[in-house]
Amino acid sequence: MMATVTARNGIDVQALLETLEAIKAKPELAEFTFRAGTSWQQGTASTARIGGSMHAGAEDESRREPFMLEGDEPPVLLGHNGGPNAVELLLAALGFCYSVGYVANAAARGIEIEQMSYELEGDIDLRNFLGISQEARAGFSEIRATAHVKAPGASAAELKELCSYVQETSPVRDVLANGVPVKTTLEVVA
Amino acid sequence: MMATVTARNGIDVQALLETLEAIKAKPELAEFTFRAGTSWQQGTASTARIGGSMHAGAEDESRREPFMLEGDEPPVLLGHNGGPNAVELLLAALGFCYSVGYVANAAARGIEIEQMSYELEGDIDLRNFLGISQEARAGFSEIRATAHVKAPGASAAELKELCSYVQETSPVRDVLANGVPVKTTLEVVA
Repeated sequence: MMATVTARNGIDVQALLETLEAIKAKPELAEFTFRAGTSWQQGTASTARIGGSMHAGAEDESRREPFMLEGDEPPVLLGHNGGPNAVELLLAALGFCYSVGYVANAAARGIEIEQMSYELEGDIDLRNFLGISQEARAGFSEIRATAHVKAPGASAAELKELCSYVQETSPVRDVLANGVPVKTTLEVVA
Repeated sequence: MMATVTARNGIDVQALLETLEAIKAKPELAEFTFRAGTSWQQGTASTARIGGSMHAGAEDESRREPFMLEGDEPPVLLGHNGGPNAVELLLAALGFCYSVGYVANAAARGIEIEQMSYELEGDIDLRNFLGISQEARAGFSEIRATAHVKAPGASAAELKELCSYVQETSPVRDVLANGVPVKTTLEVVA
């Protein structure tokens, strides 16, 4: 009798393999449109609402309630610390993305992860944002991410190779490193 | 006797002008390093911790407690909907960034905002992330943002011009549209 691994690192490996087979047979199952909405509150504070998404042309209604997030600036940037700011959230998004990629690919490769964390930081000169000077770009000049992974059953070489693979296939890292068309339109509300 | 406007759109305009003057005199006051940390929980779920930042070489200690965020995937991506996923968070970050830029610049220009919201969406083909095919890129193929702004005292032309200006100076839009170096390292924990 063979033992069947159904979950590794909390990832249902059987479901993962079935998902991959389903997408190979029907590539449009890999197509998603994700969404977020933000509502300005006051000053530098806004609330984000993250609910449904589109999957293969149909609405994913698996979330009963949307997730709500508060965003704000620290006092030095004229806010009241009601939440993280936009660029901090961007860094958190990169850490989340790397984590999912690392743990899921580790599961598929048979690597058990005991602990994993990411530290992320980015340098920014806000003179451009503040309209003072265009010497510096508006956004981060550099983002640094450090992964800390404990997986005693895998060699350092295996873990480093996986880290490289995850960088190449990370959706957030891809748009940050390579850029993406951003189309912005304004609708004036009467 | 002249009336003094101290706040417009919840932005302390006097403090904003003083901040700008201070940075003009001492450009290093515009230098920040923002940070986030993520800790993997289980499966596709991680927790982010967003606390202090560096400002002009010193630690900004204005936050007594860090902000904590949960990230996860929906069931179709092998998660349990414990929080928004990474690319949804990225879209929320863009909305937060645009909001701060729009409202602060409106305040500086004397435009009162009554309502403002952003809808953001991004299309993604996950075959690359899932290791099935490199036909599609890993990240979003396009991001769309729609601003809805109500500011009865301003003309549509003024509001549209401000929308363009905010795009050009938005830190999150800049890194998304133009890319940024992302340096990733792995530390193996024994």
